[in-house]
Amino acid sequence: MHRHVISMLVENHAGVLSRVSGLFSRRGYNIDSLSVGVTEDPDYSRITVVTRGDDMVIEQICRQVAKLVDAVKVKELLPDESVYRELALIKVRAEAGKRAEIAGITDIFRANIIDVSATSMTVEITGDQSKIAAFTELMAPYGLMETARTGLIGLERGPEVIKNYEAYSRPQEEN
Amino acid sequence: MHRHVISMLVENHAGVLSRVSGLFSRRGYNIDSLSVGVTEDPDYSRITVVTRGDDMVIEQICRQVAKLVDAVKVKELLPDESVYRELALIKVRAEAGKRAEIAGITDIFRANIIDVSATSMTVEITGDQSKIAAFTELMAPYGLMETARTGLIGLERGPEVIKNYEAYSRPQEEN
Repeated sequence: MHRHVISMLVENHAGVLSRVSGLFSRRGYNIDSLSVGVTEDPDYSRITVVTRGDDMVIEQICRQVAKLVDAVKVKELLPDESVYRELALIKVRAEAGKRAEIAGITDIFRANIIDVSATSMTVEITGDQSKIAAFTELMAPYGLMETARTGLIGLERGPEVIKNYEAYSRPQEEN
Repeated sequence: MHRHVISMLVENHAGVLSRVSGLFSRRGYNIDSLSVGVTEDPDYSRITVVTRGDDMVIEQICRQVAKLVDAVKVKELLPDESVYRELALIKVRAEAGKRAEIAGITDIFRANIIDVSATSMTVEITGDQSKIAAFTELMAPYGLMETARTGLIGLERGPEVIKNYEAYSRPQEEN
């Protein structure tokens, strides 16, 4: 039951997202995270889904997504051949006396403070999930007030691009 | 028809995302971007939706989302009282002779190069949408190969947190 990061190029129509996410939920597969945003071509959106589950079932879901009329390409991004990143906004309790400490940790993680109030600070951090987890753990003693995370997005390393693959590109068998 | 950034706290169940996105598409409202990720409490996910449309219709959709059993809180994040950020991964064509130029622009934008091949570079950039648009415009002459964007996420400025609001918190009338 390892993690799967699935990248999809879809036509930018109302309803695509609901149909794609429905294909996961109908099998009882929870989506850990999902991001959908515009691409360099305004006719297409790109969806990144992170889920955990059996390889065979994931493959079946990907094939079904690829068959949706609005889905153009579906490709699993494997860890060895991809770069992944996530963005998180984290609001922590911070009275005046704690600000310098929090700012110090923020610097070490190359994160940025984007809002300060009398009792709180909001930090923006980008990285892989382990970096964000490590930072969150260090912030927890101050008091995590609320967080918003984008979910993971990724691209294949090197010069290949998703649109040159087949509609559903199955991961290479390696193990 | 201005932009609306809507933040939702939902129970972390399979199917929530499909139902939430279905409420937008059933009215023919396209979602510009959507991000769903975990929160500081593993029982809840936070969804950020960016859409454009009539204020009254957006309000109706938000009320319907708030009525879903799995939706806990729904709040529009207004520009004056919120911080927004987005993360983009951008792969550009980059032969050896162009790398230094691209790296120079990347530095100015405090973006990071996260992958290099003989013919391509991949850059990670975080910011508001105008910063990402400006960077993308400067990269376009080199050749945009592919992009993945998280969609906008946001938090309210100051110490308020979404979970302390009512199920649907209507924006204050100002205009």
